[in-house]
Amino acid sequence: MRTHRHPGCSFSLSKAGENCYKFCMKVVFLGTGGTIPTEKRKHPTLAIIREGESFLFDCGEGAQTQIFKARLGIAPIRAILVSHLHGDHVLGIPGLLMTMTQGNRSHPLSIIGPTGVSKWIRHIREDLAFHASFEIDVKEVGPERALVSSEYVIHTFPLEHGIPTMGYRFQEAERPGRFLVEEAMRLGVPKGPLWGRLQSGHTVRLEGGEDVHPRQVLGPTRPGLKIVYAVDSRPCEETVEAAVEADLLIHDGMFLSEDVDKARARGHSTAAEAAEVAQRAKAKRLVLTHLSPRYRGEENRFIKQACKIFSQTIVAEDLMEIELSHREV
Amino acid sequence: MRTHRHPGCSFSLSKAGENCYKFCMKVVFLGTGGTIPTEKRKHPTLAIIREGESFLFDCGEGAQTQIFKARLGIAPIRAILVSHLHGDHVLGIPGLLMTMTQGNRSHPLSIIGPTGVSKWIRHIREDLAFHASFEIDVKEVGPERALVSSEYVIHTFPLEHGIPTMGYRFQEAERPGRFLVEEAMRLGVPKGPLWGRLQSGHTVRLEGGEDVHPRQVLGPTRPGLKIVYAVDSRPCEETVEAAVEADLLIHDGMFLSEDVDKARARGHSTAAEAAEVAQRAKAKRLVLTHLSPRYRGEENRFIKQACKIFSQTIVAEDLMEIELSHREV
Repeated sequence: MRTHRHPGCSFSLSKAGENCYKFCMKVVFLGTGGTIPTEKRKHPTLAIIREGESFLFDCGEGAQTQIFKARLGIAPIRAILVSHLHGDHVLGIPGLLMTMTQGNRSHPLSIIGPTGVSKWIRHIREDLAFHASFEIDVKEVGPERALVSSEYVIHTFPLEHGIPTMGYRFQEAERPGRFLVEEAMRLGVPKGPLWGRLQSGHTVRLEGGEDVHPRQVLGPTRPGLKIVYAVDSRPCEETVEAAVEADLLIHDGMFLSEDVDKARARGHSTAAEAAEVAQRAKAKRLVLTHLSPRYRGEENRFIKQACKIFSQTIVAEDLMEIELSHREV
Repeated sequence: MRTHRHPGCSFSLSKAGENCYKFCMKVVFLGTGGTIPTEKRKHPTLAIIREGESFLFDCGEGAQTQIFKARLGIAPIRAILVSHLHGDHVLGIPGLLMTMTQGNRSHPLSIIGPTGVSKWIRHIREDLAFHASFEIDVKEVGPERALVSSEYVIHTFPLEHGIPTMGYRFQEAERPGRFLVEEAMRLGVPKGPLWGRLQSGHTVRLEGGEDVHPRQVLGPTRPGLKIVYAVDSRPCEETVEAAVEADLLIHDGMFLSEDVDKARARGHSTAAEAAEVAQRAKAKRLVLTHLSPRYRGEENRFIKQACKIFSQTIVAEDLMEIELSHREV
């Protein structure tokens, strides 16, 4: 695998579609532009991939083409999570739903977003004579748990963008501690099925009649990964709070510092403002996205302005992937 | 300019974006696929360009990106003419309107389509908090004159596609006959402004007091160009009638003959059926478009099946241009 390393960045990057080594979660930047698509940056769309499921955060026009280019497939998409109802963030949804139907999808899809998302989806169905081949579960949420499974929770939190806008925090559940082989052998647990039962949290009884509890043979629990998506927004306290010690913060970085007035007026952030959020939250890494089409080839200036405040910053580009591995304790 | 000539085809083709010689009308195939976009064929979108104005016929998802690739610009777009309200034909409209607004467009835009197009545009404005910087004149039309100027008329006609669907006939007005220089000189009209007035249809008075009428110095009127767009549809009488002696017929050619059952069931045409329409209408040339994504690299089979019936057939490809010159009589 070819990896790209940006200056000051300690995590591995690869171009979508390349063969990748084993990872725990993968983030694919399908569209990293803002407002107007350019040759280099399509409308905002992000995929998080975990254990064979994928989750889209926003879904701009042309998202299905970008998904195709990244060779992600559309069947694994479990949910589309919408930050807000501006066209550049949602206009890829209808075409994607239609393509899913052309492929005879039968398993349900969740669409999650702020108030108004139900009406938008209903109008697509009614106005364009669209009959989905699968159940579309549309949920309008406030600051709460948007999607929950035994392995992760996706929370929302409010952003500042002039209209109702939500950030998302993807939090994996804690994982059990490492299995302590030597300890198990010392306690006389024979290698085999009993090890598996202990690893999955069950007490087992040995032939001699003694019980062995999981806590005796497992190390300390290990944290799950945390990824935070805060686009479009001014820098705000809610993002700092959501991103505390996040493995990855993906933040609106639409403008350079000299255009901070535009960022303020339009409900966006500068690279430096995003870096300050990451620095205050003690996030591990920051990715700037939603770059304004006014800048061409000025990515280094974004990096420079952000890295003065938070060194672990990179600028997203279309089809860039970031692979995240679990931390050990 | 590099030109491409397809077998059995007598008109010049060029790839969009290349420098072109003088033409009277140009047709640019921005998207030539059907239902699902592929790497090679995007959703249906066609541009007709005439005297600095352009007209989009359908506007699928990603149309603005294709317009950018073809270097056409969005400011000259005078009207978007919608065949029917299936997603693949209209999902590029909202993003295009938003990009026009980002560019501070101030001149009006017409959107023309069947019943329901007004509601669809209204829902985009309301659901996505979209405030256009320019007037959008939405008109729902039946079989009638959709757009009229002194130089051309765009008529609609009904197609057969299961839901209300319209074809479009772009008909230039007749042009005045050639100016007969020798005749003008014989009548004593001095070279200069009087020639111009006669050419533009005005009677002039000579110094000696005699009147000279335009009919005395102009040859027979010359036909304007006629282009017919019939997508999506089964072959039908209305298209034959609209396309009589058309310079260019652009027709749904979604399937090969072996899949005629699918064409019938889904309201589309085979290559051979489209060729039969062109042959019956005595059209000059036929372009097949809206090819099903099921076929990859089988364009020659489309050509072969169509050319058995109508030899002047080619298969559209994304970003292909056709330049049309006026015929002389």
